[in-house]
Amino acid sequence: MQHLTIIKIGGKVINQAELLRKVLQDFSDLEGKKILVHGGGRKASEVLAQMNITPKMVAGRRITDAETLEVVAMVYAGLINKQVVALLQAFGCQSIGLSGADLNSIQAHKRLVKEIDYGFAGDIDAVNTMAVAQLLEVGVTPVFCPITHDRKGQLLNTNADTIAAALAVALSSQFEVSLKYCFEKKGVLLDVNDEDSVIEMLSRSKYEQYKKTGIIYEGMLPKIDNAFLALHQGVQQVYICGTTAINEKATQTGTRLQLED
Amino acid sequence: MQHLTIIKIGGKVINQAELLRKVLQDFSDLEGKKILVHGGGRKASEVLAQMNITPKMVAGRRITDAETLEVVAMVYAGLINKQVVALLQAFGCQSIGLSGADLNSIQAHKRLVKEIDYGFAGDIDAVNTMAVAQLLEVGVTPVFCPITHDRKGQLLNTNADTIAAALAVALSSQFEVSLKYCFEKKGVLLDVNDEDSVIEMLSRSKYEQYKKTGIIYEGMLPKIDNAFLALHQGVQQVYICGTTAINEKATQTGTRLQLED
Repeated sequence: MQHLTIIKIGGKVINQAELLRKVLQDFSDLEGKKILVHGGGRKASEVLAQMNITPKMVAGRRITDAETLEVVAMVYAGLINKQVVALLQAFGCQSIGLSGADLNSIQAHKRLVKEIDYGFAGDIDAVNTMAVAQLLEVGVTPVFCPITHDRKGQLLNTNADTIAAALAVALSSQFEVSLKYCFEKKGVLLDVNDEDSVIEMLSRSKYEQYKKTGIIYEGMLPKIDNAFLALHQGVQQVYICGTTAINEKATQTGTRLQLED
Repeated sequence: MQHLTIIKIGGKVINQAELLRKVLQDFSDLEGKKILVHGGGRKASEVLAQMNITPKMVAGRRITDAETLEVVAMVYAGLINKQVVALLQAFGCQSIGLSGADLNSIQAHKRLVKEIDYGFAGDIDAVNTMAVAQLLEVGVTPVFCPITHDRKGQLLNTNADTIAAALAVALSSQFEVSLKYCFEKKGVLLDVNDEDSVIEMLSRSKYEQYKKTGIIYEGMLPKIDNAFLALHQGVQQVYICGTTAINEKATQTGTRLQLED
């Protein structure tokens, strides 16, 4: 099977113009088939504030109401996605920006209302594996923003980590996939204050142990859960790593997740 | 040669949700290979106003400064383009939204400063004919927004009529192209107050005559100039017509432009 690298970069990379350039240069230099998934960054919050739209929160969770959806679609699919693609083109990477609506690449449904109505938040139903694979086959690099659709004409706001995992799972039937969640730390840390305490291999059982003892907590949990879910569903390699690990010559590869000890 | 229809819809269609749905339904029903190019609509002005950004004007011409570029990129490439693609997908049309940066499909340069500095306005240098044709060959319908790039990482604001003409010219070497500029009138009118006074055939010489006598004026002139330029550069058929002419069963075809009488 051919190899495919899926890199997810988060909002904190998007927010720093110089770091973003560096990351996109490294991504462009990466050989072989690849996909980039980017998160939102603080631009959406800035635009919401500038437009005097108050962020809607229920029980501490952000709600995507109609106004907010318009802004995130504008910022994620319009500004950030196109700026990223324009930079990749400048670095010689033949890329194409995609939302889930484009090519019907990621179909989702509006999250069902239980205790909380999350508004226009989309939970993924299906990836159009054939369409995405077709782009990869002709040497095009897809760049996904965290916007999906319900195939009835409605755009939806979907978490970028989840999109990266769904793409990796769908494409793992045709490619040997390395999924890399790149963020501001070098990997999952044993000690959050020590950048050199990267856990090189994290098994499911060790993760449960670290969770219980409070060594891994808060924001890392959904990220790691997503990563394990991808492994469980057949993705060949999953890493949580720093943006420096994108570079092919990187010595630091971050934390590799494993199902078994 | 295979036939290719390129439809350009303007801002006034984008502004009316029900009309837009109807137009996109008709466009979806259109058989054969096709491309949609959309303009901006008033949403960009609304967002600019809501963000307290004053539109920049010099000598009566709109200037795309850095702030304005961000907003038009958001609105055109993000919101409108993705809403259009999501609706087309709902109508069963396998479409993909593109800016000129995507696939390096339309390369432009920042307009040279003569008397006026138009800011981040992009004049087209080249269309990546192969990339666009490749999408058409696999049955995908490209949907272009009026944003291009300079291949050095800079997004640019480019007139949608010009984009439609450039695509038509580039693709006319591989396809028999019908380029249709669809707008709120049924075609070029002999009498602007009489919707039934559509000029069915407009030759270059007649156009010059109508211009001289003031029958055709103002906003219509750049549109018709663009259309004639496309004809001169080899596009097989060029129409200026109403949105109802998109429907394949339409009896009204609007104004067909011709080089000769």
